[in-house]
Amino acid sequence: MAGSMSAQDKLALIYENLHEKLKEEIIEDVIIRQDRSLKIYWGTATTGRPHCGYFVPMVKLAHFLRAGCTIKILLADMHAFLDNLKAPIELVKYRAEYYRFVITSLLKSLNVPIDRLEVVLGSSYQLSAEYTMDLYRLCSVVSEHDAKKAGAEVVKQVANPLLSGLIYPLMQTLDEQYLDVDAQFGGVDQRKIFTLATETLPKINYKERAHLMNPMVPGLSGGKMSASDPDSKIDLLDPAAVVEKKLKKAHCAPKEVEGNGMISFVEFVLLSVDALKNGGRGRFVVERRKPEDGEPLVYEDIATLKEDYEADKLTPQLLKPAIIKAVVNLLQPLQEEYQASAEWQEIANKAYPPPETKKKEKKVKDRGTKFPGSKGVVEAKPDGHVEGEAKDQVNLGTGAAEAMENLDIHKKALP
Amino acid sequence: MAGSMSAQDKLALIYENLHEKLKEEIIEDVIIRQDRSLKIYWGTATTGRPHCGYFVPMVKLAHFLRAGCTIKILLADMHAFLDNLKAPIELVKYRAEYYRFVITSLLKSLNVPIDRLEVVLGSSYQLSAEYTMDLYRLCSVVSEHDAKKAGAEVVKQVANPLLSGLIYPLMQTLDEQYLDVDAQFGGVDQRKIFTLATETLPKINYKERAHLMNPMVPGLSGGKMSASDPDSKIDLLDPAAVVEKKLKKAHCAPKEVEGNGMISFVEFVLLSVDALKNGGRGRFVVERRKPEDGEPLVYEDIATLKEDYEADKLTPQLLKPAIIKAVVNLLQPLQEEYQASAEWQEIANKAYPPPETKKKEKKVKDRGTKFPGSKGVVEAKPDGHVEGEAKDQVNLGTGAAEAMENLDIHKKALP
Repeated sequence: MAGSMSAQDKLALIYENLHEKLKEEIIEDVIIRQDRSLKIYWGTATTGRPHCGYFVPMVKLAHFLRAGCTIKILLADMHAFLDNLKAPIELVKYRAEYYRFVITSLLKSLNVPIDRLEVVLGSSYQLSAEYTMDLYRLCSVVSEHDAKKAGAEVVKQVANPLLSGLIYPLMQTLDEQYLDVDAQFGGVDQRKIFTLATETLPKINYKERAHLMNPMVPGLSGGKMSASDPDSKIDLLDPAAVVEKKLKKAHCAPKEVEGNGMISFVEFVLLSVDALKNGGRGRFVVERRKPEDGEPLVYEDIATLKEDYEADKLTPQLLKPAIIKAVVNLLQPLQEEYQASAEWQEIANKAYPPPETKKKEKKVKDRGTKFPGSKGVVEAKPDGHVEGEAKDQVNLGTGAAEAMENLDIHKKALP
Repeated sequence: MAGSMSAQDKLALIYENLHEKLKEEIIEDVIIRQDRSLKIYWGTATTGRPHCGYFVPMVKLAHFLRAGCTIKILLADMHAFLDNLKAPIELVKYRAEYYRFVITSLLKSLNVPIDRLEVVLGSSYQLSAEYTMDLYRLCSVVSEHDAKKAGAEVVKQVANPLLSGLIYPLMQTLDEQYLDVDAQFGGVDQRKIFTLATETLPKINYKERAHLMNPMVPGLSGGKMSASDPDSKIDLLDPAAVVEKKLKKAHCAPKEVEGNGMISFVEFVLLSVDALKNGGRGRFVVERRKPEDGEPLVYEDIATLKEDYEADKLTPQLLKPAIIKAVVNLLQPLQEEYQASAEWQEIANKAYPPPETKKKEKKVKDRGTKFPGSKGVVEAKPDGHVEGEAKDQVNLGTGAAEAMENLDIHKKALP
């Protein structure tokens, strides 16, 4: 399909709904002058369970694929581990697999070609001698101050920041070179890391990349969706009844468009998904509560929908059921694939082990899931992070060998 | 010889002249209870040309060897490169070789067995996947604040500190594990790094090591000797006439013992060297200016020498010629070995390339030594660091491959 698109149409689709672009000339040079597939990298740290917020970047990846781009998805298992141990190392391997299943299934369900989609595990090259050498070279040109500033919006901010948080942005910088891409894509929260990459790669003699940024989209239930607060999100595997329950009680103030997660979901996901699936302009249909109230409201652009919402013509009482229906539809193909795949189900259980039956919520000392390598007891929380007295040992492993085994790294596989 | 020494004699020799010891019980457990060779690591960044100040740690290494210890000397080529680019990467390989020649020759000249001496190149293991994994693990438990504090006295302090300066102390910590030693030795300026190592290795499940610290010894010509100020030091290859000239003009205030580099040199080098070479208590002999002034002054302990100096019985006029004679004697075996080794001479020229003939000192833009990998022009200063418009490119190489080639790193050689 991309073959029949003009360069201008490709660029329009690549840029659709983006918040910001840095160095567009790099992208335009590839698409217009060089007339080849633009290579874009998108990274995701394999931490908590991907939720509905994941559709926002997925839609852009779908746009890129539809426009003939080559997409390299970095499953950043090392980053997951480095960012204040958001993911315990012995679970990271399974989580990366889980993410791979989810991403592939989501993109397929959006009706885009995935033959130019490549999923790369960070640990498959981030421990190689070359990469490490380059990381040292980068450490020799980047100041503490700049590394800290770069990670400020992405790395979890804690009272006594860890060194890993300073390394994180440098690895993300180096990944552009090692994944051999033309551009990196991410949320606008990545802006400072992108700027660091732009400024520092040339200092170690590698070329500067373009950067494409999505806006920060409020979560369906209001506010930024968080993987670590299970109540704030709709899991991709939530059954229709749970989706309905969660969305029914979600915040959705009448006439308020700003920060309204449901409206944002229409804007950045539903309209685009409908366009991708069915071609033409995307449509979002809102049924009336009773047939006698008139024809359904049909929106083909977000501006009209926002006008109607501000005028209270489109009320929360009308919007919510339409959103619920759309989300359930959106999740259906993914959930069907999940139900049909014993392998995926097994990975899900390993990646996010259910907490053992807790009789007394208060007393966790001698309860909870026990992980290999742990001398004490820890408990796996629903979002996947662990708590308990032996937390540190679990997260770090007893040595490099165990850590690497947990990550499934075989030395010979390193480039 | 160590075989015939009692455990107490070994400990006395190991501790002789040290400023401070941390966790002596580790050392005593190895020597008394386990009755095996104590493994000690000493690291040196391969930057400027080693000068006479080098004798201070060498004497301690000689003590350790005489006491039957196993010594692992880390030629920290990666550190040399990381510490604010004190050594340009394409010279580091040669410098490491130069250091190896110097250290081996010095220790041989001190009449100690060197069969338990092992010289290890940092880059031979510091780019391995295991080491890198462990560095990441360490980065996940060490705060920016602690890493910065640890390096404060060792890493060159600059206005806008580089990230490499924070990585440096962590690598030094990890080296204790990778060199598989019982203790690390260094100057007391390393104290904060040693403390970091003590506190953090157990956090990633590796055992805590003991630490042995030398005092900071003022340079022969007064003040801390610096490898980067050629006038402040006596190079190990300086001919007798140059040694004499430099020491004659060196600062040596009468009656002042505190901060007097010449007296320190007797205390921490000459007395010990004489004891190592000739057995028994060390002696330092000061000839009278004229035979009719009486018998030579013979010192077997530093306290008596200091008393005489404070009383002006031992004047600078008497002390200086004795020091000059002793230093010339000390350097003689090393210089003879150098003169006899075409290989060592060749390495010296590569490691510290002499600046090209400069007709106009002011105009360096299009003069100076040109290094491989450089697109512009740089000049090698006598201490080995480089200056010039293309300095950055020279120091960092054009990519990981070039940097690794410069360091002579063959992937297959990595563990």
